[in-house]
Amino acid sequence: MPLSSENDFLALIDRHFPADHPHLRLGRGDDCAVITCPPEMCVTTDLFLEDVHFRRSYFSAADVGHKALAVNLSDVSAMGARPLGFSLGLTIPAGLPDAWWEEMFSGMAGLAGEAGVALTGGDLSAGGKVGLCLTVWGAPPPGGRFLRRRQGLPGDVLFLVGEVGLARTGLHLLEAGAEASAYPASKAAHLRPGLHLGAALALSTAPGVRGLMDVSDGLAMDLPRFLAPGTGADLRLAPADLHPEIVAYTTAHGRDPVRWAVRGGEDYALLGACAPDAWPELAATLPGARAIGAVTSCPGLFLSGRPLDLAGFDHFAPHD
Amino acid sequence: MPLSSENDFLALIDRHFPADHPHLRLGRGDDCAVITCPPEMCVTTDLFLEDVHFRRSYFSAADVGHKALAVNLSDVSAMGARPLGFSLGLTIPAGLPDAWWEEMFSGMAGLAGEAGVALTGGDLSAGGKVGLCLTVWGAPPPGGRFLRRRQGLPGDVLFLVGEVGLARTGLHLLEAGAEASAYPASKAAHLRPGLHLGAALALSTAPGVRGLMDVSDGLAMDLPRFLAPGTGADLRLAPADLHPEIVAYTTAHGRDPVRWAVRGGEDYALLGACAPDAWPELAATLPGARAIGAVTSCPGLFLSGRPLDLAGFDHFAPHD
Repeated sequence: MPLSSENDFLALIDRHFPADHPHLRLGRGDDCAVITCPPEMCVTTDLFLEDVHFRRSYFSAADVGHKALAVNLSDVSAMGARPLGFSLGLTIPAGLPDAWWEEMFSGMAGLAGEAGVALTGGDLSAGGKVGLCLTVWGAPPPGGRFLRRRQGLPGDVLFLVGEVGLARTGLHLLEAGAEASAYPASKAAHLRPGLHLGAALALSTAPGVRGLMDVSDGLAMDLPRFLAPGTGADLRLAPADLHPEIVAYTTAHGRDPVRWAVRGGEDYALLGACAPDAWPELAATLPGARAIGAVTSCPGLFLSGRPLDLAGFDHFAPHD
Repeated sequence: MPLSSENDFLALIDRHFPADHPHLRLGRGDDCAVITCPPEMCVTTDLFLEDVHFRRSYFSAADVGHKALAVNLSDVSAMGARPLGFSLGLTIPAGLPDAWWEEMFSGMAGLAGEAGVALTGGDLSAGGKVGLCLTVWGAPPPGGRFLRRRQGLPGDVLFLVGEVGLARTGLHLLEAGAEASAYPASKAAHLRPGLHLGAALALSTAPGVRGLMDVSDGLAMDLPRFLAPGTGADLRLAPADLHPEIVAYTTAHGRDPVRWAVRGGEDYALLGACAPDAWPELAATLPGARAIGAVTSCPGLFLSGRPLDLAGFDHFAPHD
């Protein structure tokens, strides 16, 4: 099937994404889709652009489709919500083989199926490079609530679900052209970030959870966005808290593993605050949740009691 | 204010788009926005890309911001709905002056204010060219209903609200570098397409209206998408039904004005079908609505009884 027209692409999309879905009252093919809505929904948009957010040299087409959706689903999880639907703006350069698109949609549809989320529609355009702009929306599960940032109180336990620093390790390895077998978890973390869809729903209904976000730009940059004004954080992170590949990689390259991990972006771990009296129950019932420090009444970021002074990641600024 | 970081852009956006809006339960600055939702909403996504959908040589920055939102609002209108909110994925090339961005957001915010629509959030990224991906959602007014395609019955009146062919005339003039004073309505139609937000709401509640869409790719391409399977259309369009600038331009260039208009895209006129017995009342009460033909039981497109054989517009195919 040669993908020579907009209609060919629409047919390919229709093969990968079901038009019948409980959330979808009217599917693709009209001026708009029509969706059934709970009384409140959360909405997020993320761009995923070739040579900005991914390279085709080491992302398979399926990785591209998967990660473009994953980074958006992660934002919905970070609100304690279940994703319901998404729309896609896709920029299509000339010259990519049909199999690339087949695989890209297959990677995206695989994750959409796992997450139970409906593709409602979107737009296609010619363009210079592969570009994806996804908007995803969702709502908390029954009995759940949206979990916001800046809600933690001094003394709250700061916790993580997922790794930090692993995707950064993977990015450095992939950019350096590391051999295929080296550091598999790190590279997988960058190419196909793990999601925490079930944990997010559990947190949405758990008592004592006072806030949640996803760590997309690294703890050093995201913690200040997470903390309530006038509060700070004291992180208690040791190499033993990090994935062994991070420790191995940083040791081999003469870097401090904890400082490396604290700067690492794109892990899409969930960062939360929990009332201290509710923490033991949460830690016991939520697999993978682990304390990484506490909210303090003293503003600023501290690592084991010492001020943390690290730049984060800004798309507009140079970074290492 | 030098726009040197993501935070500078976010501050600029905050200055142009109010964070307090009845639709916006939680505004920008968290992992997601939270919106209040009616039981059903319609959703649409459109890309608006430099050198694909617009050129900076003849689009002012304000035109870019205005039109990127307008083409999306038009899709919501085409469902008989009122737009409520939108999100923005914005690609930012290096080197554009700060004033360009100020003006772009000003153009977009002006139209958002007129339409009463809230910017809920989005994403920013560096990139090679200016690119906008907007997702807009809305709902019918009280007592209204979504108006879909493919609902017209043989004998229904086909009607238009807005011009067809005028934006195509403007595009040809702008591409040819026509002098500033020539054909002002045509050029305005391409740069800042007129919207029909009020008409859409009236149509949503009007009896006898059986379908609606917006004409973005030209009548020749969009009518087959509008008609129910097994039906056709007989268009009754004469030069007197067209904007005088279309007639003047096509006459000066040796083209047939009606065939030109039928091929013209990007006008964002509303195309509807109305039961014949309801048409007189609708025509009398809806300013600008005019009959352009009828749905036929014979499949195919006809112009004054003769088969219409014209190619439309496909982003992937060459076009004139």
